[in-house]
Amino acid sequence: MKRRVKRKVTIRDVADLVDVHHSTVSRALSPTKRDQISPAVIRKVEKAAKKLGYYPNIVASSLKQNRSFAIGVLIPDLMNPVFPPIIRGIQDTAEAFGYTVITANTDDEEAKERDALRMMQGRSIEGVIIATARRTDPVVKECIDNEIPFVLVNRTVDRDGVNAVIVDEDFGIRAVLDHLVGMKHTSIAHIAGPQHTSTGYHRAKAVADYLRRHNLRTDLVETSDKFTIEEGGRAFRKLLARDNSFTAIVASNDLLALGCMDAMQEVGLLVPENISVSGYDDILFLERMNPGLTTVLVPKYEMGSQATKALLGMISGESIGPGVLSMQPRLVVRNSTAVAYR
Amino acid sequence: MKRRVKRKVTIRDVADLVDVHHSTVSRALSPTKRDQISPAVIRKVEKAAKKLGYYPNIVASSLKQNRSFAIGVLIPDLMNPVFPPIIRGIQDTAEAFGYTVITANTDDEEAKERDALRMMQGRSIEGVIIATARRTDPVVKECIDNEIPFVLVNRTVDRDGVNAVIVDEDFGIRAVLDHLVGMKHTSIAHIAGPQHTSTGYHRAKAVADYLRRHNLRTDLVETSDKFTIEEGGRAFRKLLARDNSFTAIVASNDLLALGCMDAMQEVGLLVPENISVSGYDDILFLERMNPGLTTVLVPKYEMGSQATKALLGMISGESIGPGVLSMQPRLVVRNSTAVAYR
Repeated sequence: MKRRVKRKVTIRDVADLVDVHHSTVSRALSPTKRDQISPAVIRKVEKAAKKLGYYPNIVASSLKQNRSFAIGVLIPDLMNPVFPPIIRGIQDTAEAFGYTVITANTDDEEAKERDALRMMQGRSIEGVIIATARRTDPVVKECIDNEIPFVLVNRTVDRDGVNAVIVDEDFGIRAVLDHLVGMKHTSIAHIAGPQHTSTGYHRAKAVADYLRRHNLRTDLVETSDKFTIEEGGRAFRKLLARDNSFTAIVASNDLLALGCMDAMQEVGLLVPENISVSGYDDILFLERMNPGLTTVLVPKYEMGSQATKALLGMISGESIGPGVLSMQPRLVVRNSTAVAYR
Repeated sequence: MKRRVKRKVTIRDVADLVDVHHSTVSRALSPTKRDQISPAVIRKVEKAAKKLGYYPNIVASSLKQNRSFAIGVLIPDLMNPVFPPIIRGIQDTAEAFGYTVITANTDDEEAKERDALRMMQGRSIEGVIIATARRTDPVVKECIDNEIPFVLVNRTVDRDGVNAVIVDEDFGIRAVLDHLVGMKHTSIAHIAGPQHTSTGYHRAKAVADYLRRHNLRTDLVETSDKFTIEEGGRAFRKLLARDNSFTAIVASNDLLALGCMDAMQEVGLLVPENISVSGYDDILFLERMNPGLTTVLVPKYEMGSQATKALLGMISGESIGPGVLSMQPRLVVRNSTAVAYR
């Protein structure tokens, strides 16, 4: 490794320049202790620190205080467009409280999730936000067993007593189905998400409950193995081979809906003329597609932000956690849905 | 903070279970030292560590070794769709070498860039990948002055002697303009990116050089202040108010191109019937838009991966850095470009 030749600037250099005790400098630069120092002194210390190029050694002070000021985030894949806004919400909120975020992609593989959690524990993260939960989740169990503070985001687990920031799936599905039934659709299919995820499971359950309440067919369901475009296409083809009497498809998320539309195009079916299609999430650029996809907007950035506030509250001991915080989604109507053609 | 009641599992517990010396456990679990240990012992140690729930304390060992096994990444905004694939390329490559990635969003604000770099130094990052560079960049200067290993990605700086993984902009612009000139366009406008970025500057220069070489007009240029959809719209309106004789627009990136197309729609101009439009980057979902945007594909994931390999090579002392690694982009023709109508 390359040798550093410059002497590292220390806290005492800053203290000498401002002419205060070094503990004052330390407090002035600490996000958690600066309220003990006057704003004028904080300004002077910051100016001097900047001039000298001083920065506090977070690693050393984290060992001393037994705190790392870092939290971990587990996501399936940053390239899935639903996650960047959630992560940005987490990062902005964590930073505002002086925390750093370490993100890991797990590709929905349990081994990678365990490895990521272990790596994060090795970095003494103070808590973790989990966007990868399965309904029965060994990593969640590991957090509970090891008393690692955690908050679930987007997806939750079946067991009680966890903290989670999720979407009111019943509300979202009801909004989509009210919209479709209001446009005379009576044979409505559902492309369900993976049933080991709470989102896939609860959306499917909400669809079935709604259709039953309205005395509509509930047998037009195909279940996907993953929330991907490819799986949406596969599930659609399977559905179509079995039954072609439906006039609308409610997909469990936007990527599945896009996959359905691709598969429809291949067999010459038009959206919305032949079949209406809706998604869920409202990922970016849907409004620019042809047709624009009707969907349920999930407040992604805000969910990330709320999950972070909840986790930091738990870490600071101010809160035992929010329980389940259920955020309200919103129907966004575009032109992939229209009045039923028959 | 909540008290942990469980005794933390130590390296000696693992060593006792496997019946080896604790230094063997330490080496077996170290990404940089495990090649000193036989695979059979590594397997036994890993199994025991998993059973006991042991994980090495990276924070403590980083202080002892004066290494953090962490690198920093500065990006403008994770929600700009060009960055998630770059970051994923960085994360995958860094992880494969046992490194953790800390990412910060700077919103192209110098103060945030400096704060982020300071935070990263506080965490003893061993190097930094910078995707936020301006042609004259104070943060790059700070890295040089403080001898922090760094690699620029996507954008570079004017000064020599830095390490950067960028795109061959001349090649990309030539591919777009060959395509347009081949379709009889002779009045070609350019929506330039911010001129304080190397991408905005070099693409504009490549456009001007090409047009001059082909004896075509070079005065149809509007410069944007940011690489955003909004700025693309603003620049297009300004251009149109001044001159409406062009039949094609080469935008400096995809977001600017989308902004142009939005503004064209507002005034009833059709793409490509009235005006052909091209972008640069190939962000996700362009092929699903109406019309699909012709663009220059930048190998985003691979650039992230290459930049990380370069940085880790510098950190390990195996390399003084790649110099400037220029990756080849590729023209992707969709239906936003067509034969000139006049």
